[in-house]
Amino acid sequence: MRRIRLRHPVLQGNQIIADQNRQIFNQHSLLSLNVMSSPGAGKTTFLESTIQYLGNQMRIGVIEGDVATTLDAERIAACGAEVVQINTCSACHLDAGMISRVLGNFNLASIDFLIIENVGNLVCPAEFDLGESLCVTLLSTTEGADKAVKYPAVFQRSDAVILNKIDLLPYVNFDLKWFYDSMKELNPNAPIFQISALSGEGMAEWVHWLLTKRIEQRNESGRDSM
Amino acid sequence: MRRIRLRHPVLQGNQIIADQNRQIFNQHSLLSLNVMSSPGAGKTTFLESTIQYLGNQMRIGVIEGDVATTLDAERIAACGAEVVQINTCSACHLDAGMISRVLGNFNLASIDFLIIENVGNLVCPAEFDLGESLCVTLLSTTEGADKAVKYPAVFQRSDAVILNKIDLLPYVNFDLKWFYDSMKELNPNAPIFQISALSGEGMAEWVHWLLTKRIEQRNESGRDSM
Repeated sequence: MRRIRLRHPVLQGNQIIADQNRQIFNQHSLLSLNVMSSPGAGKTTFLESTIQYLGNQMRIGVIEGDVATTLDAERIAACGAEVVQINTCSACHLDAGMISRVLGNFNLASIDFLIIENVGNLVCPAEFDLGESLCVTLLSTTEGADKAVKYPAVFQRSDAVILNKIDLLPYVNFDLKWFYDSMKELNPNAPIFQISALSGEGMAEWVHWLLTKRIEQRNESGRDSM
Repeated sequence: MRRIRLRHPVLQGNQIIADQNRQIFNQHSLLSLNVMSSPGAGKTTFLESTIQYLGNQMRIGVIEGDVATTLDAERIAACGAEVVQINTCSACHLDAGMISRVLGNFNLASIDFLIIENVGNLVCPAEFDLGESLCVTLLSTTEGADKAVKYPAVFQRSDAVILNKIDLLPYVNFDLKWFYDSMKELNPNAPIFQISALSGEGMAEWVHWLLTKRIEQRNESGRDSM
């Protein structure tokens, strides 16, 4: 079998579109998030809770990436956010082109945050820049503390790490010290938020950080009005 | 950007090597398993427990697929199984060629079961036949009952489904009825084993099924000695 490696050209092509997306987001002073995790780490519940916390003050658009079904998009729509579903069929990650193709569905001028829920996968999404302002990775306590060292790329790329299902900590063997030590090695600058998306524990600190990032972004882009 | 789709040729190339692997496994009357799940569903603990149950009667070889680290291989070696580690670097699944390249590290004639722990990922591994006799997918109760319909390919391809972390059921919102109904739609022939790999609950039923499959395979290949 001849093996043709298309990895680099594919990633280069992705980067061009990601940079275009980033430019569009900046023009609209949008803070965009690329939210990544394993399947079942609680991304959708986390988004529901984030929207609830931000909801009254902020206008939120959500892009839902899923292999199949519109289940998550329906849950997000029920929270009152504008939502667009991308079904990737068998593709295991979102890429910048997929994001670019659905941006026309939003009135970007009327949105403060664009949140992209990536396909549940700790490997492939880490390689594809979508043009986002911030990468956020969720890990749930039920997955185990070894996941940061076993799937380093996604944790290295993150601007913040959310440790979800903290309410289940008493029932699982999650070595908090190991996880924090690993993150110190992999990505010492990323803050770690311990939360329970279900109960709301820790959500206020996360949302405070997110709002601070938005102010920073707007100050940088020369617009200081909120 | 021109986009060149290499999906089909890659999968065709994989199939040729998978068929060669299968022939080698059959020649050695090996029962081979391809074990798939999300990161953190408990594959390695499940293998530790399976090896413990089979250990005295059966000789077991294990191929550990991981993006990075040898953590899982070390745990499996400590159980007394022969183990070979494949680090895929950033690749998100094992393919038949990777398996083929490491088979020389085993004395296949002296092994009863070859267990392959795939990379933690519910999407990509489902597409790559490794030549295995049986596909086994783990889902943990903490991931949620929607995962079967959201990631259908891996559940459709499975010969058995393991519902792990059944001990955590009282603490999570896992809709058992929805999960069983979904599996009835997707793959009515695959048995579902409710287990706790940590406590050993349900492991005896799973291992009994596995031993039955081995007897069936040996009867089919004309060797009825165990």
